[in-house]
Amino acid sequence: MAERTDGLNFTDHASLHYSEMKLDRIYMDYNATTSLEPDVIETITEALQDAWGNPSSNYIAGAKAKAIINQSRENVARMVGGKAEDIIFTSGGTEANNLVLHTAIEHFRRNCRAAEQGEGHQNGCTGLPHIITSNVEHDSVKLAAEHLQRDGKADVTFVPVSKVTARVEVEDIIAMVRPNTCLVSIMLANNETGVIMPVQGICQRIKFLNKQQERLRILIHTDAAQALGKFRVDACELGVDYLTIVGHKFYAPRIGALYVKGPGTKTPLYPMLFGGGQERSFRPGTENTPMIAGLGKAAELVAANLPEYEAHMRSTRLYLEEQLKATFKDKLHFNSHYPGSDILPNTCNVSILGPTLQGWRVLSHCRKLLASVGAACHSDSGNRPSHILLNCGVPTEVAANALRLSLGRRTTKEDVDAVVDDLKEAVLQLERMN
Amino acid sequence: MAERTDGLNFTDHASLHYSEMKLDRIYMDYNATTSLEPDVIETITEALQDAWGNPSSNYIAGAKAKAIINQSRENVARMVGGKAEDIIFTSGGTEANNLVLHTAIEHFRRNCRAAEQGEGHQNGCTGLPHIITSNVEHDSVKLAAEHLQRDGKADVTFVPVSKVTARVEVEDIIAMVRPNTCLVSIMLANNETGVIMPVQGICQRIKFLNKQQERLRILIHTDAAQALGKFRVDACELGVDYLTIVGHKFYAPRIGALYVKGPGTKTPLYPMLFGGGQERSFRPGTENTPMIAGLGKAAELVAANLPEYEAHMRSTRLYLEEQLKATFKDKLHFNSHYPGSDILPNTCNVSILGPTLQGWRVLSHCRKLLASVGAACHSDSGNRPSHILLNCGVPTEVAANALRLSLGRRTTKEDVDAVVDDLKEAVLQLERMN
Repeated sequence: MAERTDGLNFTDHASLHYSEMKLDRIYMDYNATTSLEPDVIETITEALQDAWGNPSSNYIAGAKAKAIINQSRENVARMVGGKAEDIIFTSGGTEANNLVLHTAIEHFRRNCRAAEQGEGHQNGCTGLPHIITSNVEHDSVKLAAEHLQRDGKADVTFVPVSKVTARVEVEDIIAMVRPNTCLVSIMLANNETGVIMPVQGICQRIKFLNKQQERLRILIHTDAAQALGKFRVDACELGVDYLTIVGHKFYAPRIGALYVKGPGTKTPLYPMLFGGGQERSFRPGTENTPMIAGLGKAAELVAANLPEYEAHMRSTRLYLEEQLKATFKDKLHFNSHYPGSDILPNTCNVSILGPTLQGWRVLSHCRKLLASVGAACHSDSGNRPSHILLNCGVPTEVAANALRLSLGRRTTKEDVDAVVDDLKEAVLQLERMN
Repeated sequence: MAERTDGLNFTDHASLHYSEMKLDRIYMDYNATTSLEPDVIETITEALQDAWGNPSSNYIAGAKAKAIINQSRENVARMVGGKAEDIIFTSGGTEANNLVLHTAIEHFRRNCRAAEQGEGHQNGCTGLPHIITSNVEHDSVKLAAEHLQRDGKADVTFVPVSKVTARVEVEDIIAMVRPNTCLVSIMLANNETGVIMPVQGICQRIKFLNKQQERLRILIHTDAAQALGKFRVDACELGVDYLTIVGHKFYAPRIGALYVKGPGTKTPLYPMLFGGGQERSFRPGTENTPMIAGLGKAAELVAANLPEYEAHMRSTRLYLEEQLKATFKDKLHFNSHYPGSDILPNTCNVSILGPTLQGWRVLSHCRKLLASVGAACHSDSGNRPSHILLNCGVPTEVAANALRLSLGRRTTKEDVDAVVDDLKEAVLQLERMN
């Protein structure tokens, strides 16, 4: 109820002010969501008009839709270094992440049953399935894992990231493996700090464990939501079994996909939904052809232009960091800089130090900058400092001042200059008020 | 694998022939999927361009998206006679239906636990939860229920429809109620026969049972996928707790919603997915703003124009039936006509009788007509007669010849004339071949 009231208040606000405000605003919240590439919008619109047939229909209108979906599947697969049959379209990243956790639990359960009947490996198939993840995951892994734990369906270890590197360290993961561990789920890059996690190293060690013992295979998942479109991601090189793909983080629409290395053959995949048999029954429901078409187009653009996108975002972000340093000098702390850790090319998480310069205060005094203090889905968590930053070892009073500035493919140095000026003004105003 | 190979063959076929073929084709498969209304496409395209902000973001771009979503929620609610807070957006009907079954099981489980602790009603909370449904439901209810049964999570009774009326009869439902019955799920109208089910009568009787005893409340669900946009649907008048809404059956895009009468307050709703808190945590995942906007627009059109749509579809369908009778005379059997049963205004399920006139054969000899022999999601079930028609008492040899002709808002009498000619030619050809 509360949400609805909020929403309706927002409505009035939005309709009154949006048109006046949008022109001189500069968006630096591309980790929350991206706009759509014009080519992607065109692809979606064409499909809305021409490919509305039911992809399961036997006649030509169905075949056209089916062909578009298959082309999109090829493009998405190519983007992540997989095969077309490894791609299962989902409604988004949340569903993809939940599906992986569901699968791991179900896989464990079936193995237990088989073991009881003398058919499978005994090892590991006692007690609850055990999941290892980190303490900086997106809520669609964190809350899904907590739910399984609360429900008595799984044990979960949330391995803390190092407070030095902000990475979850390979050894810390391996140290937590138990005989009944069935899944390791570690994000590829963090949405707030931009820190890239050592997923390849984790996979190598886990695969070694999987070979070494007669044990239930530990499945490996990475949520690549923030990585795709920002740096090269190859599921095979990483060595993961599952990889989550989220359209609206790489200029595609609000759907997603799950890469599964040989779903149902090399890697288990158990559906959460049952219905009309679409997506080889791994994810039934009449396919959202236009959105799938858009996802495919956006993936094609990433596959073709990634080095360019990445170089542009990196140089613009480095320029932003320089300008911030030149302006705020020693009053600055980068929450995205950790010794030895690589970060996303586009992400600058920064605190301007000072007792009145909490992130939300600074943003509310900016005239141009549109950014956030952390993950969009925590926007209703009031003004508490991000638990992600606290978990990364950022002191509370620094974390409270955090601004997450995440750049896009078309963010310019002029945008950066304007934003830094904007921040300077906002900070001056706030300091004067005290 | 097989599916992919099929798809790729289709691709070549489609790209070669689609453009030549589409112009003179007449689509009569609106129960499989509809095209999108031009206004709906425009709404989606606008939102793709202008409302890409993350609805959870605190700034104006987020607020605009949030406002669009709330407006859409109002429109969808109005279409089904509910309140805005009763609408939970989902990825489609399959998800909505699965969510209801999941909720019923979870509700039962929690009540059992509470009863064990002396807090709830004892009655009914022993053994497995029991679900009552019919034997003509869509696969997203049928297979979801079968999965729960197979998994040892529920007992399910598939009440057979009457072989006279093709309806599931109220008394037959009530006779199946057990102390541990937790859900009755009956579709509002069947997708193949068009027969409208006595959902209001079922609700009245179940509510009486719910009041009469100190028992676990039996929840009532209807899948209104085929009803919306075809006749007036009012969730309150029907008396259901849950009602499934599927966009692509009423000229909206491929998403859906679940109406829940007071979700979490008057009626239980337990999420299947966990994540960023969207949809009041009943269905997390960054909202698909453009598709939600399109769903809202289509719902607005239905609310405004339903009598006109309904009258047009009914008169065109009656004209189709007349022309078929005039052409094929006593060689015709309507699989959508049952004594005392109302049917959807747009649905004509008909068999042209004759040993060589199987539905798939006739359709493959048509030059203009695009239609199906049954549900699109059964299109890969080969040439077996529809189990839905067999369950309705249609003899096997008649069911094998079934053609499901489902009309749309813009199907004309000229289209009907052309299709009847087309069928006549196809039948002549097939009869000559033997």
